[in-house]
Amino acid sequence: MRLYDRQGTPNAARIRIVLAEKGLDDAVEIVTVDLIAAEQKQPAFLAMNPMGKTPVLELDDGLCISESTAITEYLDNLDGNPVLTGRTPREKAVIHMMQRRVEMMLLETVDDYFHYATPGLGPALKPWRMPDWAGAREWAERRGAMAVANLPYFDEVLRERPFLAGEGFSMADISLFAGVAFAAGAGLPIAPELTALAAWRDRVEALPAVRNRSGQDFLPEDFTRRVPAESSAS
Amino acid sequence: MRLYDRQGTPNAARIRIVLAEKGLDDAVEIVTVDLIAAEQKQPAFLAMNPMGKTPVLELDDGLCISESTAITEYLDNLDGNPVLTGRTPREKAVIHMMQRRVEMMLLETVDDYFHYATPGLGPALKPWRMPDWAGAREWAERRGAMAVANLPYFDEVLRERPFLAGEGFSMADISLFAGVAFAAGAGLPIAPELTALAAWRDRVEALPAVRNRSGQDFLPEDFTRRVPAESSAS
Repeated sequence: MRLYDRQGTPNAARIRIVLAEKGLDDAVEIVTVDLIAAEQKQPAFLAMNPMGKTPVLELDDGLCISESTAITEYLDNLDGNPVLTGRTPREKAVIHMMQRRVEMMLLETVDDYFHYATPGLGPALKPWRMPDWAGAREWAERRGAMAVANLPYFDEVLRERPFLAGEGFSMADISLFAGVAFAAGAGLPIAPELTALAAWRDRVEALPAVRNRSGQDFLPEDFTRRVPAESSAS
Repeated sequence: MRLYDRQGTPNAARIRIVLAEKGLDDAVEIVTVDLIAAEQKQPAFLAMNPMGKTPVLELDDGLCISESTAITEYLDNLDGNPVLTGRTPREKAVIHMMQRRVEMMLLETVDDYFHYATPGLGPALKPWRMPDWAGAREWAERRGAMAVANLPYFDEVLRERPFLAGEGFSMADISLFAGVAFAAGAGLPIAPELTALAAWRDRVEALPAVRNRSGQDFLPEDFTRRVPAESSAS
C-alpha cells in the first residue's frame, strides 16, 4: 500500500499513529505530497482524490481511499481485530460519535481558522480557497474562538473516563490528539485549567505508537511561524 | 430504543430510511423534538446530546448515541449483517469515504446556506447560531453555491456505477438522497442536465424503505415556504 500525505499535518499524524498502533508501518510506503506547492490540487493527485486533500491510501490494486476516518477504519479492520474503531456495535457507535464530535468541534473549526485567519499553508493554495469576502477574517476568527470554546467539553468528558470513548484508546483519541496539536500549532490558546485534557494528552503522548509519530515534528515549526501574532482568537 | 428527531429534516430522514431498510421500525419509539422552538438546545435534550442536535438514539440502558453516521452504524451492526455500511474492510472504506464526501460537499454546505442565507428554522434558534457579522450572508450564499457546484461530482460517479459506493445501496446513498432533497427544499437549483443523478434519485425513491419514508413529507412544506425568492444561490 502507498500513503500519500505530508508529515506534520494533523491528518497525516492521525494515519501514522494508526499505522504504528496496528503494526503496519512496514506494509505502507509513504509518498510525500507537497501541500505548500498545491500538489494535491493538480490533476495527478485529483485522479486519486477529487477532493484534493491528503491523506490518500492507495491499495495494491489501485483503489484509492481518502478521508482519515475511512482510512482508519480500513486499516483497523484489515486484521479482523479492530482495536481502534470498536469491536461491538455499541463500542463502534460511541467511538464514531466522539470522533465526529472532535471533527466538528475542533478539527474543522481550527482548519477554518488556520486557512482563513492565518497565512495557512501559503499563497500557492489561494486559488483553491473560497475567495475573499467582506468579513472572511471575522468569520475565521469566530471559528477559531469556537474551537477554543469547545475544548472544555473534551476536558469534561476526560474527567469521567480515561479515554474519549471509554476505557480504551481509540480513533476518537487520535483525532482529539491531532486536533489539540493543530489548535496549538495554529496559535490558538489551550487554557491551563483544562487539567484533565492536559493529563490525557500526556498519557496519549506516552503511548509507543504516538511517541514515535509525533513529538517535535508533529506540526512543523513553520506552521507556528506562519501565524502572525495579531491573529490569535480570544 | 427511542429515537428523538423531527420528521422532515434531512437527518431524521436518514435514520428512518435505515430503520425501514433494517426492518427495525417496531424496535424504536419515535419522540418528536420541537426544533422550531429550540427544544434541542434546552437542558433536558443537552443531557442526551451536548451538541444540541437531532437525531439521538437512546438505548434501553440509557446510552444516548448521536451523529447520524454513528446511529446508522449502530443499527446496521446490531444484527451482525451490516448491509448499509459494508461487510468487508474494503466495502466499509469506500462507503465511509463516499458518505463523508456527501457530508462535506453537500449536507454541510446546504446546512450553512439554509441556516444563514434563509430564515432557516426560524427565530427561536437565533441565540444558538453564530452571531451576525459583516458578510455572513455572502458567506452563506457562497456555501450554497458550493453545494450546487458540487452536485456534478455525484452525477459523474453515478454515471459509472448504480449506487454511490458501488453495486449496492448503502449509507452513502441515504446521505446523498437526504442531501439532494435538503438542497431542493432549501431552494437551491438541481441542474436538469445531471441526468445520472436524477435517474439514481428515481431508483432510490422507488426502494421500499425509502418510498415509505420520504415522498411528500420528506421535507415539510414550510421549509420551502420559508426561503424567500431572492435567497437562492446562483
